[in-house]
Amino acid sequence: MIPMPQPQAALAQAARERQSQLTKPAGSLGRLEDLAIWLAARLPSPTPMRLKPMLAIFAADHGVATEGVSAFPAEVTAQMVINFLNGGAAINVLARQHQISLAIIDVGVANDYPNNSQSIAKLFRTPIANGTANLRHAPAMSEAQCQKAWQIGFSIAQEAAKAGKTLLIAGEMGIANTTAAAALICALTGHAAEDIVGLGTGINPASRALKVQVVNDAIARATASGANSAQDWLREVGGFEIAALAGFYAGAAAAGVPALLDGFITTAAALVAVKHDAAIGQWLIASHASQEQGHRLALQALELEPLLDLGLRLGEASGAALCVPLLQSALALHGEMATFAEAGVAASNME
Amino acid sequence: MIPMPQPQAALAQAARERQSQLTKPAGSLGRLEDLAIWLAARLPSPTPMRLKPMLAIFAADHGVATEGVSAFPAEVTAQMVINFLNGGAAINVLARQHQISLAIIDVGVANDYPNNSQSIAKLFRTPIANGTANLRHAPAMSEAQCQKAWQIGFSIAQEAAKAGKTLLIAGEMGIANTTAAAALICALTGHAAEDIVGLGTGINPASRALKVQVVNDAIARATASGANSAQDWLREVGGFEIAALAGFYAGAAAAGVPALLDGFITTAAALVAVKHDAAIGQWLIASHASQEQGHRLALQALELEPLLDLGLRLGEASGAALCVPLLQSALALHGEMATFAEAGVAASNME
Repeated sequence: MIPMPQPQAALAQAARERQSQLTKPAGSLGRLEDLAIWLAARLPSPTPMRLKPMLAIFAADHGVATEGVSAFPAEVTAQMVINFLNGGAAINVLARQHQISLAIIDVGVANDYPNNSQSIAKLFRTPIANGTANLRHAPAMSEAQCQKAWQIGFSIAQEAAKAGKTLLIAGEMGIANTTAAAALICALTGHAAEDIVGLGTGINPASRALKVQVVNDAIARATASGANSAQDWLREVGGFEIAALAGFYAGAAAAGVPALLDGFITTAAALVAVKHDAAIGQWLIASHASQEQGHRLALQALELEPLLDLGLRLGEASGAALCVPLLQSALALHGEMATFAEAGVAASNME
Repeated sequence: MIPMPQPQAALAQAARERQSQLTKPAGSLGRLEDLAIWLAARLPSPTPMRLKPMLAIFAADHGVATEGVSAFPAEVTAQMVINFLNGGAAINVLARQHQISLAIIDVGVANDYPNNSQSIAKLFRTPIANGTANLRHAPAMSEAQCQKAWQIGFSIAQEAAKAGKTLLIAGEMGIANTTAAAALICALTGHAAEDIVGLGTGINPASRALKVQVVNDAIARATASGANSAQDWLREVGGFEIAALAGFYAGAAAAGVPALLDGFITTAAALVAVKHDAAIGQWLIASHASQEQGHRLALQALELEPLLDLGLRLGEASGAALCVPLLQSALALHGEMATFAEAGVAASNME
């Protein structure tokens, strides 16, 4: 295990002291105060500058889609990659609004892209295979494939850190990937499929019952074949984009740069990363509570508290992108507010 | 009663249809979809442009501060007004970050401003008196004072609407104003003081017990003197800035411009406005759930659901300002995302 950079407790303490001197009642900025202190220890500075966020979307297909566990056909993965490249998806709108640089990475999309798409040149094409195997009946990927996907994510996080990015965000696109994520969360937390499997992109109750069965079958199969470590489970029931996400979080932590989670899939990947090396957890921050059933339980397993709860269930890092202005606000308030002494404001007479 | 402009149901319907065609699973943007539809009916447009927000902070003092119900001395109201004018308060930081124009209005600050403050020229000075009377023992203000304060708020909202602002936000500063707001919320909702009175800027348990007693005394006094209508209660136990806030919401509704609430004090003022004329409620939107006890009950009385819950209890419209990028995101997603047809993405096969 590579030794991880550590958050700096002395900077957290300096930030905490500064917070107590700003012209507001102590604690009155609630979680924004906690965020400023958390970021100070990691950026690392007693008064960190404005964040420079980058966002990577990893796209891949899933053999399990043939089981009928998604409301959308598998072709949509490739179609949505083109939509990302053309700037028409939700995450494009949010990235433009919040000045987040955006990279789209194909780590295993199964279907061909349309020949007439000029924007394809902007795609990072590192496909590992045309989608994973069907995790209900076989390991989703080989060990070599899994390591390759992890390494792609790891390298992208490392390069972003080297380029001066100070907040690393990842999102995903992959039809049927809530099935893989649910299986991973069940395997790594011990929760029952019934409690973790949700409606994904909007399936009906019959399809959800099937999805629960598929997850249970996959876990039974992988258990029988001796799956034990987080890496085993990732290979058995994960996905290429999920492995890349886990590697991305490992890379962020190794570079000492905070990483902001998105929803259900990214949190499943973060669980893999943290089960692999608990020190990675120190660099993770939760953005929102997804509408997807089981996300809250997965966040609890990571001991993370989401900032937003707006009923989102889109993925693409959309919930994470919505939190970027909140993080920027936390730092701006921390750095720019006047102190009681500077402003000539009397302090509380209660203490 | 002046007839209010009405939200346009046909535009809400057009926005709802557009949402169903955007490249995302139906409903997957959760409350951001509801926000876009709500705003479409009011701005009014099927695809509203970026919001032009303005923010007014009303400051005034409270005679009840002499009872010892606040953690800060009454001088802090004037000191914080200077801090606002000098750009050092939390709301200044957030207004800069989110390009919100900011106006500071003195409607009854009791203490003198320092002679050496050059920024005083930026203050709108329309003080009604040197703070209200002590609401524990007497009506906080006269009927003429109350109407004057209301009219100031009303005019500011109307002028902002005329100047093309499309989102009206108000905040407040006034040492001891959580006592007045708690009394108003109790009077207008029937909740007990014990359930509504909170810790304000950070009082200790003994001071909170006193604050509950003060609220109960004020309500008993005003009830005995025949208080009945929302306007009666505003005059008896309100404050100049609270009356201005209520007038501000009335002015926003009369101009047909959405108004975004902040925390405990602004919600008390909104209750007064809505009890005065229920049609005003159609133009109000909640921003955050304050840490201040009783805020949730006040929002429930208005049938409003907050967007954020970050443990804030600062006032100054800080919680409202934090929501501005969420509202901008809702409109940007609504207006800029590609449709399934535009992007060549297959729709769900579940319906």
